[in-house]
Amino acid sequence: MSGQFRSECRRIIFQSSHWDEKLFDVALILSIVVSVIVVMLESVPGINGDVRRWLYALEWFITGMFTVEYALRLYVSEKPLKYAHSFFGVVDLLAILPAYIDLLVPGAHYLMLLRVLRVLRIFRVLKLAKYIGEANILMRAMRASARKIAVFIFAVITLVLILGSLMYLIEGAEHGFTSIPKSVYWAIVTLTTVGYGDISPQTPLGQFVASLIMITGYGIIAVPTAIVTSEMTRPSEASTSSPDRICPACGWENHDPDATYCKVCGDKLVK
Amino acid sequence: MSGQFRSECRRIIFQSSHWDEKLFDVALILSIVVSVIVVMLESVPGINGDVRRWLYALEWFITGMFTVEYALRLYVSEKPLKYAHSFFGVVDLLAILPAYIDLLVPGAHYLMLLRVLRVLRIFRVLKLAKYIGEANILMRAMRASARKIAVFIFAVITLVLILGSLMYLIEGAEHGFTSIPKSVYWAIVTLTTVGYGDISPQTPLGQFVASLIMITGYGIIAVPTAIVTSEMTRPSEASTSSPDRICPACGWENHDPDATYCKVCGDKLVK
Amino acid sequence: MSGQFRSECRRIIFQSSHWDEKLFDVALILSIVVSVIVVMLESVPGINGDVRRWLYALEWFITGMFTVEYALRLYVSEKPLKYAHSFFGVVDLLAILPAYIDLLVPGAHYLMLLRVLRVLRIFRVLKLAKYIGEANILMRAMRASARKIAVFIFAVITLVLILGSLMYLIEGAEHGFTSIPKSVYWAIVTLTTVGYGDISPQTPLGQFVASLIMITGYGIIAVPTAIVTSEMTRPSEASTSSPDRICPACGWENHDPDATYCKVCGDKLVK
Amino acid sequence: MSGQFRSECRRIIFQSSHWDEKLFDVALILSIVVSVIVVMLESVPGINGDVRRWLYALEWFITGMFTVEYALRLYVSEKPLKYAHSFFGVVDLLAILPAYIDLLVPGAHYLMLLRVLRVLRIFRVLKLAKYIGEANILMRAMRASARKIAVFIFAVITLVLILGSLMYLIEGAEHGFTSIPKSVYWAIVTLTTVGYGDISPQTPLGQFVASLIMITGYGIIAVPTAIVTSEMTRPSEASTSSPDRICPACGWENHDPDATYCKVCGDKLVK
Repeated sequence: MSGQFRSECRRIIFQSSHWDEKLFDVALILSIVVSVIVVMLESVPGINGDVRRWLYALEWFITGMFTVEYALRLYVSEKPLKYAHSFFGVVDLLAILPAYIDLLVPGAHYLMLLRVLRVLRIFRVLKLAKYIGEANILMRAMRASARKIAVFIFAVITLVLILGSLMYLIEGAEHGFTSIPKSVYWAIVTLTTVGYGDISPQTPLGQFVASLIMITGYGIIAVPTAIVTSEMTRPSEASTSSPDRICPACGWENHDPDATYCKVCGDKLVK
Repeated sequence: MSGQFRSECRRIIFQSSHWDEKLFDVALILSIVVSVIVVMLESVPGINGDVRRWLYALEWFITGMFTVEYALRLYVSEKPLKYAHSFFGVVDLLAILPAYIDLLVPGAHYLMLLRVLRVLRIFRVLKLAKYIGEANILMRAMRASARKIAVFIFAVITLVLILGSLMYLIEGAEHGFTSIPKSVYWAIVTLTTVGYGDISPQTPLGQFVASLIMITGYGIIAVPTAIVTSEMTRPSEASTSSPDRICPACGWENHDPDATYCKVCGDKLVK
Repeated sequence: MSGQFRSECRRIIFQSSHWDEKLFDVALILSIVVSVIVVMLESVPGINGDVRRWLYALEWFITGMFTVEYALRLYVSEKPLKYAHSFFGVVDLLAILPAYIDLLVPGAHYLMLLRVLRVLRIFRVLKLAKYIGEANILMRAMRASARKIAVFIFAVITLVLILGSLMYLIEGAEHGFTSIPKSVYWAIVTLTTVGYGDISPQTPLGQFVASLIMITGYGIIAVPTAIVTSEMTRPSEASTSSPDRICPACGWENHDPDATYCKVCGDKLVK
Repeated sequence: MSGQFRSECRRIIFQSSHWDEKLFDVALILSIVVSVIVVMLESVPGINGDVRRWLYALEWFITGMFTVEYALRLYVSEKPLKYAHSFFGVVDLLAILPAYIDLLVPGAHYLMLLRVLRVLRIFRVLKLAKYIGEANILMRAMRASARKIAVFIFAVITLVLILGSLMYLIEGAEHGFTSIPKSVYWAIVTLTTVGYGDISPQTPLGQFVASLIMITGYGIIAVPTAIVTSEMTRPSEASTSSPDRICPACGWENHDPDATYCKVCGDKLVK
């Protein structure tokens, strides 16, 4: 009887085909979105009085719901400790703990921000749904080009170090380039074409070097794009992921088609 | 006789092969462009006296022309109500209504801005002309990659939420990061390499995290580009659109080659 | 005798294989670069005294050389009037005229800036050299995708008009959005990720809409890239240009391989 | 005996398969990274007292290590003079010389910045390791598209010269466009979408031209991306580099598979 209830819960939490499984997913996404909005609004200085009271109530309502969800996830896991140690287990705990700590230690309210991390859960929910194929293609392309991108980023950092040091010598502290780290920061702001303007070169030579950096940055943005594009246009091997298999202990879902055991926690897979 | 005049009007409005049909298209585009310029100039504080009187006269001249055009479109439609309820029907009405309302309620002049929406009509006129093929290729590539782009944008939003919250903690209100929503806004400004500079990190740690955000933004701009490029370089299926068929009731023109009835309003198609 | 001198001159000016032909090209490029630098330096307020006298002397030296070159080009052309009316003929004249006008009318010095246009001549010199193939590939890709890019730019302008008007309503004159043209200018600054920061949204709603514009701009930069890339990766047809044939009358050099007469001025081609 | 020690040293310095060879590489990378951080921190004005003393000690410790390494490299080279004249030989010397010069001439401390150049050494170390293939692909794509990119950059410079001069006439000195070089600098800042905002157009006409520059810059960023992408998606020829062969005299490592002598210094290759 209890076992049946538990397997029912597990089905609702980990799958997404029937209406009740979908309802759980939608409710989960909604509550995460609302909780993020509440955390964000609470930081706005202008909000006071009634609105703030409402936010406070909502915060505790969501905390309650997240606590129930956390307890349920512990309950339905075959190895609760594994779930508790997994990445999402820790995130789920961090989402509820600060509210309780805040009752004891008043200054701990800032930790509430950790709740934002729960947004990552939405990825997992969506992964189960129809977006899994697209996300997999993107991830595979990113992973395949990771080394090339690493080489590129290292080259960018080298460039930025050398150019930042150069600009520190050219412009000096009186024009805002007070130290090499700050000059390097400026070089990154310029090379990536962000261009805040809080620091900007004043001397003709500095502006000339800055122009070279800008044109370089404008040109080498082509490199990561070319890397990822060439990876994505490559004829892809037959996609063989089976998104429906989820480990009942830790919740990992990227199992190879021939896997019988979860490669993260070693538990036996259901299907 | 009246039926002949009506079918003549319909031909001139909905087609674009003969010289009179083309003349109507050109006049329509011109009057829309002029009306947009008039609306824009009227908002400039420095324009006064004679120029403003001229603009006022032009505005009413265009309002008159648009009113005639709206009446004609109602007249030539086989189901006028369908046209009136369609997207462009509403836009056409919104382009003339504010001028008349302004006579009764003086403060309604701001609604004149709705006239800008009529720019969208130009797309439809061009669609009938030679640009339709190009626009279709672009639209098809966009639609085919819509899901991948949705996943990407969601990932960007998540990143921006987490990084914005982090910067709120690092920099705090005294450096302009007065609330989490504002910090998230800053993170978007930075990640998309816009970089206004109205808010910028002041602490060394904040500048370090900002540098990471910039390099990330510089790198992941590759992803949407790769998505759309890989979609556009893909060998395209034979294009089978027939741009010349327009629904006489609602004006929809993206009919499948085998369609006999308009899929938007259900009306029978002419050809 | 005179005819031989003239054909020698023509060879040196229009070809680039022998050492004397190459020397002419290099001298031409150098003198153009120097003239541009002189024009730029003369506008710098800090430069005075001896340096300015040197610049003045250099300016007249280059004016003299350009005058001789212009006279020679007129002399070697079989139809001098055609050359004088061609684009580069006008540019060459505009490069020397302001200096002489300045002697009569003192305020005409600003026209000296027209000399910058002579930079375009460098393209023609390079075109004759080894860069012609590369430039042709780039130009062909640009021309092939011109229509798609036109549709894209029109879509961007529409977007910017609507968003600019919207921001004018949201932010209003007190936050720098003093008129719709200015708001549209701001929308362009934001959408293209330039982000000066001279105008930036202050209200929460304005910042929210601005965030949407930024993410849109960040995303749709993919479109022109995808257009040009898909054009350039397309297997190119056999390149059949013959860069060595130049019209002796007007100097046009993009002749089809089977052309016997210049398609710009109708003159007979040499080879 | 001495010869054996020398060949041992050479093996440890130039190869990276055994644990001691890898240890040397890791120690080299670490010491370079630490030295760069020390040079950067020494420029920060806020750091004083004990921390500065520690940095001073670290600096001399690293100087000592680099000196030993330089001596070893001279010792193991078969032609030490060739190494001393090679690019990395000069960089290695520049990394240690400033510290000693500083003892004699107190003002020479700024030369310490040259140590940043040693970051380039990391590339060589990584080149020997697993990243060589990726870096080679990137380099080959860059080299293959170098000419196209040169044409593109020249076109950008021409555009920027003409637009910068134009804006100097339109805006003038009172709006920050004090000279043509400064206007050209502004045009580069705008075209590359950096957008500092230290100079920004104030007149309506100037803002209109600026909008055109921005949209142009937004569009032509597609060109370098398309160039590099089309180069990288091209089916690559079989990679035939043999990364393990390093010239014992000058340390060059890009030898063709059939090379028997180093093409940089003419020395016989080991394997």
